[in-house]
Amino acid sequence: MTIKAYMHELGSAAKLAAKRLALSDLSRRNDALKAIATAVNTSRQDILEANEQDLVKARANGLDAAAIDRLTLDDQRLDAMIASLQQVMTLADPIGRVDQVQPMPSGIRVGKMRVPLGVIGIIYESRPNVTVEASSLCIKSGNAVILRGGSESFFSNQAIARCIQSGLVAANLPEACVQVVDTTDREAVAELVTMNDYVNVIVPRGGKSLIERVAAQATVPVIKHLDGVCHIFVDETAETDMAVALVLNAKTQRYGTCNTLETLLVARAVAPSVLPPIAAALEAAQVELRGCEETRLLVKECRPAHEDDWYAEYLAPILAIRIVADITEAIQHIEHYGSHHTDAIITQNHGHAERFVREVDSSSVMVNASTRFADGFEYGLGAEIGISTDKIHARGPVGLEGLTCQKYVVYGTGQIRC
Amino acid sequence: MTIKAYMHELGSAAKLAAKRLALSDLSRRNDALKAIATAVNTSRQDILEANEQDLVKARANGLDAAAIDRLTLDDQRLDAMIASLQQVMTLADPIGRVDQVQPMPSGIRVGKMRVPLGVIGIIYESRPNVTVEASSLCIKSGNAVILRGGSESFFSNQAIARCIQSGLVAANLPEACVQVVDTTDREAVAELVTMNDYVNVIVPRGGKSLIERVAAQATVPVIKHLDGVCHIFVDETAETDMAVALVLNAKTQRYGTCNTLETLLVARAVAPSVLPPIAAALEAAQVELRGCEETRLLVKECRPAHEDDWYAEYLAPILAIRIVADITEAIQHIEHYGSHHTDAIITQNHGHAERFVREVDSSSVMVNASTRFADGFEYGLGAEIGISTDKIHARGPVGLEGLTCQKYVVYGTGQIRC
Repeated sequence: MTIKAYMHELGSAAKLAAKRLALSDLSRRNDALKAIATAVNTSRQDILEANEQDLVKARANGLDAAAIDRLTLDDQRLDAMIASLQQVMTLADPIGRVDQVQPMPSGIRVGKMRVPLGVIGIIYESRPNVTVEASSLCIKSGNAVILRGGSESFFSNQAIARCIQSGLVAANLPEACVQVVDTTDREAVAELVTMNDYVNVIVPRGGKSLIERVAAQATVPVIKHLDGVCHIFVDETAETDMAVALVLNAKTQRYGTCNTLETLLVARAVAPSVLPPIAAALEAAQVELRGCEETRLLVKECRPAHEDDWYAEYLAPILAIRIVADITEAIQHIEHYGSHHTDAIITQNHGHAERFVREVDSSSVMVNASTRFADGFEYGLGAEIGISTDKIHARGPVGLEGLTCQKYVVYGTGQIRC
Repeated sequence: MTIKAYMHELGSAAKLAAKRLALSDLSRRNDALKAIATAVNTSRQDILEANEQDLVKARANGLDAAAIDRLTLDDQRLDAMIASLQQVMTLADPIGRVDQVQPMPSGIRVGKMRVPLGVIGIIYESRPNVTVEASSLCIKSGNAVILRGGSESFFSNQAIARCIQSGLVAANLPEACVQVVDTTDREAVAELVTMNDYVNVIVPRGGKSLIERVAAQATVPVIKHLDGVCHIFVDETAETDMAVALVLNAKTQRYGTCNTLETLLVARAVAPSVLPPIAAALEAAQVELRGCEETRLLVKECRPAHEDDWYAEYLAPILAIRIVADITEAIQHIEHYGSHHTDAIITQNHGHAERFVREVDSSSVMVNASTRFADGFEYGLGAEIGISTDKIHARGPVGLEGLTCQKYVVYGTGQIRC
């Protein structure tokens, strides 16, 4: 069978399964999640052996330590998978609710019912826990899913997929609600993202090059997240202690995440008092500083920043620092160099806070909080399929609602249009 | 200047203008709409002369009567344009509202602010009133717009554009909030739909071939509407009088609209009593009937329907009729042959009504009402930029909200993430 024929078979099966899943009761969908958690728990040895197969190959291929770490499963990570399934079980049903039913002058009543999108395609890299997490969100939201994991985690994903299939069967739902592509051929991705008759939306999860490649190929709509070049602006009314704590947290709590701080902007009036303690805290955490000329006059150890640094998503212990005249210049910098992901102001001035929130065109805009809070769990969504930097459909952290849409429902008593 | 350079100039100007428009007060946006209405009113002669230029060319090119009608402006249609501007003025501000601000366990408060998308590209055919209607919705929702009208309405659109520009200037908003492409070269469209750096969404308005061409070329997200193959299912509990009235209205109130009835499904049990009066009413309205074999036994004048008829969007006085066993077969027919636009059931049975609403996967699903109600005005949206048959972002009639998105706003008091 050709890759194309194989993928169309998956697509067609997914579409059929999606219809049944969309109409299933919440209890049945939760039963499936529970049965998957049980299957993961009882299949630990099977999963860890499969993972070891992947790890042997990864070491032979010379993958770097970070990639090996992302790929590695152990009992603790399996516990986390099980906990995430239980967490999704506790969430309210995202589908079926009819909102805003209102009578119209014609006499009809019009409302909106939240319904699944249909079939979701997830394309991801080496982290095998995505197989469970993405599947659980799709099942809960009534969507069938086709998963295409990275070749590095091939055996792990297949082992996890067997647990998911058995859980679906135990809950009397079609196995094809979750299908894991069983080839690592890239043609499978090219096919998946262009099967508009079968797939309703694609969610790529991984590094920038993966996402760019998917977006360029796709004719199916993509919910995607590109760069996270996040800023904090410390204005002239900021409390120094708060500024130090927030910058330190936003930069160092985790280096590799999209909501990590990459550029610090400081109002000129407070730079002499605020920058030295911030720099001291960051240097103690072994963060390399790259600053504008004015910054370097205040912070000796700071290297010079170049034009590229203002655009950089370091994902590393490096921070760019620039002194700006005021909030206007800060907003201009963020609009010019930023990626519209997450940006924060530290201020005690109400007008500045409101202006920053209103004018900065990013998926999350914050006042006096760490950019690291841009996350589905921290926002109370209960789960997260990803963070969207698109403006269409879903923006910012995407929870279950991002995997649904609304249809209009109209109740009449025989009304005709005049 | 090349077409590409010209379009990028429009895009760059639109993006700048969009920033100012997004931050403008509602009163200023409404002032612009009012000034545009005044300008249209005082420029009637100018607009009608330009329209006459288009009409002379259209007649010389042998355009058909329907196309000439769509193109023609007169005082009554200018009155309607002015009325539509006044209508949009009365609508609530779709942007700036912050919803659902809730405290989280960490202490941060998280909400969502509704904001404009940015720059909208509208691609349309011969109806020059779209120039005013689309512009007014974009201005109201804080979006800049680039309009590309059909070559047939070129002079009309330019004359209307002058009114819009003068209205924007009168309200002290950038002229580039609304720009009308001043070339009919198709390359301009190809450029518009791929300028991802400048354009946030494309809304094509027109026939199916236009929309398919735009969707195939576009890399910018498209809010689009393809076929409207709408169904009414008359179940075995339907009241005959209601069935006759709704079918007649849905089929004959207007033939050329996407929410017009194209296929009638009738439950076998009531076909002998319901079909003859429906057929009589439709034949009196000179609607051609094409039916399945069973239908033809009950309705003598009915021609045979072929497989193609079940897929057909006639947009004409033709109706396909099929007798089905029950609601299950009706839903299967709709899912197989339908276009997921608008479908209705006529029933007195509550369980059937609820099942139809839940199971039919269309942008509008109706009970005991004419499919012709699928419309932004009838749904209380106050306006309509189009009807989306996509599932992503906006589905069904799209009003001002479809031209906006939400960003997360986070208010803290110094919280860091643990």
